[in-house]
Amino acid sequence: MNLKRISTLALGALMAMGLYAQQNLSWAQMPVVSPEVNADNSVTFRVLAPQAQKVQITGDMLPTRKIDTPMGKYDAPGVADLVKDDKGVWSFKTGKLPSELYTYNVVVDGVRTLDPSNVYCVRDVTNLFSMLLIGGGQGDWYRVKEVPHGTVSKIWYNSPTAGLKRRLTVYTPAGYETSKEKYPVLYLLHGIGGDENAWSELGRAAQILDNLIAAGKAKPMIVVMTNGNISQEAAPGETPNGFTVPTLMLPKTMDGNFELAFPDVIKFVESNYRVKADKNDRAIAGLSMGGFHSLYISANNPDTFGYVGLFSAAINKQQTSGVESERVYDDLYGKLAKLFAAKPKLYWIGIGKTDFLYKDNADFRAKLTAKGYPFTYMETEGGHIWRNWRIYLTEFAQKLFK
Amino acid sequence: MNLKRISTLALGALMAMGLYAQQNLSWAQMPVVSPEVNADNSVTFRVLAPQAQKVQITGDMLPTRKIDTPMGKYDAPGVADLVKDDKGVWSFKTGKLPSELYTYNVVVDGVRTLDPSNVYCVRDVTNLFSMLLIGGGQGDWYRVKEVPHGTVSKIWYNSPTAGLKRRLTVYTPAGYETSKEKYPVLYLLHGIGGDENAWSELGRAAQILDNLIAAGKAKPMIVVMTNGNISQEAAPGETPNGFTVPTLMLPKTMDGNFELAFPDVIKFVESNYRVKADKNDRAIAGLSMGGFHSLYISANNPDTFGYVGLFSAAINKQQTSGVESERVYDDLYGKLAKLFAAKPKLYWIGIGKTDFLYKDNADFRAKLTAKGYPFTYMETEGGHIWRNWRIYLTEFAQKLFK
Repeated sequence: MNLKRISTLALGALMAMGLYAQQNLSWAQMPVVSPEVNADNSVTFRVLAPQAQKVQITGDMLPTRKIDTPMGKYDAPGVADLVKDDKGVWSFKTGKLPSELYTYNVVVDGVRTLDPSNVYCVRDVTNLFSMLLIGGGQGDWYRVKEVPHGTVSKIWYNSPTAGLKRRLTVYTPAGYETSKEKYPVLYLLHGIGGDENAWSELGRAAQILDNLIAAGKAKPMIVVMTNGNISQEAAPGETPNGFTVPTLMLPKTMDGNFELAFPDVIKFVESNYRVKADKNDRAIAGLSMGGFHSLYISANNPDTFGYVGLFSAAINKQQTSGVESERVYDDLYGKLAKLFAAKPKLYWIGIGKTDFLYKDNADFRAKLTAKGYPFTYMETEGGHIWRNWRIYLTEFAQKLFK
Repeated sequence: MNLKRISTLALGALMAMGLYAQQNLSWAQMPVVSPEVNADNSVTFRVLAPQAQKVQITGDMLPTRKIDTPMGKYDAPGVADLVKDDKGVWSFKTGKLPSELYTYNVVVDGVRTLDPSNVYCVRDVTNLFSMLLIGGGQGDWYRVKEVPHGTVSKIWYNSPTAGLKRRLTVYTPAGYETSKEKYPVLYLLHGIGGDENAWSELGRAAQILDNLIAAGKAKPMIVVMTNGNISQEAAPGETPNGFTVPTLMLPKTMDGNFELAFPDVIKFVESNYRVKADKNDRAIAGLSMGGFHSLYISANNPDTFGYVGLFSAAINKQQTSGVESERVYDDLYGKLAKLFAAKPKLYWIGIGKTDFLYKDNADFRAKLTAKGYPFTYMETEGGHIWRNWRIYLTEFAQKLFK
């Protein structure tokens, strides 16, 4: 940047950020472009690091590596070494990539961090990742397009059952503020370690709904994204606990308490938004732990939801702590008998072929089939990953409220 | 983390993030705690980097360094070298720090990036910074506390004057959804390179308002945070342009077009929210370029705002492009004569002692004084920095609508 050509105000802004000062440091960082999506949908990553010994990237756009885990072989995100040029710029070019949203990290001399040239990042549970998006296919559902945009709100509600004020993300479709209409509601639940931000950030829920509604492929609907960690008021950093290290395993997770407190969410939504408050205008869906929650919330409330979506869902209870709230997991098939007797409009199951929960889901599907309960099934490539959950939301949302 | 003790689902989540895989890599990263706020309000930073040659931090919690700029000597954020122990953990401990929100970067072998152990980050114009907050003083206004929380929404409005649909951040105070009351409105404007996210992220506007209102120090109010870059629909990443590199200097910035389109914002807010739509229930304030915008929007609409706040404001036009819209900058003092004749309830000016705009503000104050126009003035330590803008919002908000 030519400092003589920019305004005093811009120079002041650079100084305010401490960036002007970099010019005076030996580690001054000149701009490189990274990531660069090339015309053929390959991507070039670049890191200016003349003093580094080794620079790598790891991310879901690289060929996976087979690794051993206690649960068997697993396809882990790949790693690539960048190559240094004579100006100290390290680079790596991928092959041509499918249209998708990708997440990655840069590793500088063994330190895993973000791409220093990319300001777009997202937190997935305990870690930050840099992001990039390749359009021209599935990824186009995740892009911001020139279409009417819904509103995304962070709003607090009272959960007397949990004894907490708790935070929600609510998507209201374009036109909600000015129309007099009532809307159907999709309750959309995150996985273990996630929170009320997960579906709107990694899940691209607002972009998916904006684009599907604008294309006439989904009905305008409200999407309510809850926080499924019942001991927690809100996402890390959004509670009185401050900027604490996020925890993968929170207390009271999957012990029935979230499921029992769920009616508080519905009550809040139905008394604060213009919604159609009947079974066939309510859907519930979730990924992984959120699929588990959706399974048991719908089973325990067989007349509440006309649509149920289980995305790479955990089916079986993971552990028993013996608390009374765990009754919500008892007699699943007795409860499902009531649910299917009430004829839900859609019972939808999606899972990836290499998901570690594949067998549990296959067993569950076999039981539903044996009992003659109708369901819709989608099987995709890959495992327990956000790529699949975005695909499932894109598919599921098109089938709702029609 | 002991992998044997966590559930299958948690292990699956680790795998989904690619973090389990780290165990199989030579650069496997074991957790260190960073930043750690110690009991005496010093902070320890740690980076696990056994293979790095040099690790530094730079941030606004370190003693500033004097550097030369085209605008004279400037206090740049300090730099500190971390020291490596025999386990490859680099660390640095600051002195005791005042209660504040701080931003910083870690520099690994010359590469400026985020603290790999801290998931809390924020974008300031073109760069990401790691964040930490020290309570027990001014920083307590910026914390999430056990108080009723307002709602923060990202909402799109139509600006016929700009010919664009544009994005706003809107804070509605706790109770807005269920009360029948009408509320006053503060329009809050960002600086150059910023956008509609700046005040809610770096500015901590929602936390400041939640805490002031709960303490009885500010009236419940709606806060509307605009995007002042009139050629832009929304913040970087939130437009059809995709994940592009943010630009400090956008087209049509400070050429009168934002000021002329501002009535579109007011019209949208007053027809979509329950607001008191009269002069003494409207305030406008902004920082730097947003102070400049506030100065000229209020001067050109002398009967619209009862409260005006200029936070480290640019006073004088930076450059002339000769477009017709620049008429909004003509005859400032003629316009101010009308504004002060209409007796605003508050005309508030704040600036830091070492701000590069200090002299322009001193000259402006001298003119107001010479003309007998009443204003309230606050002078703080330091320069053109977010620390001051958060202080000014905290002070200004307490004086509104009373």
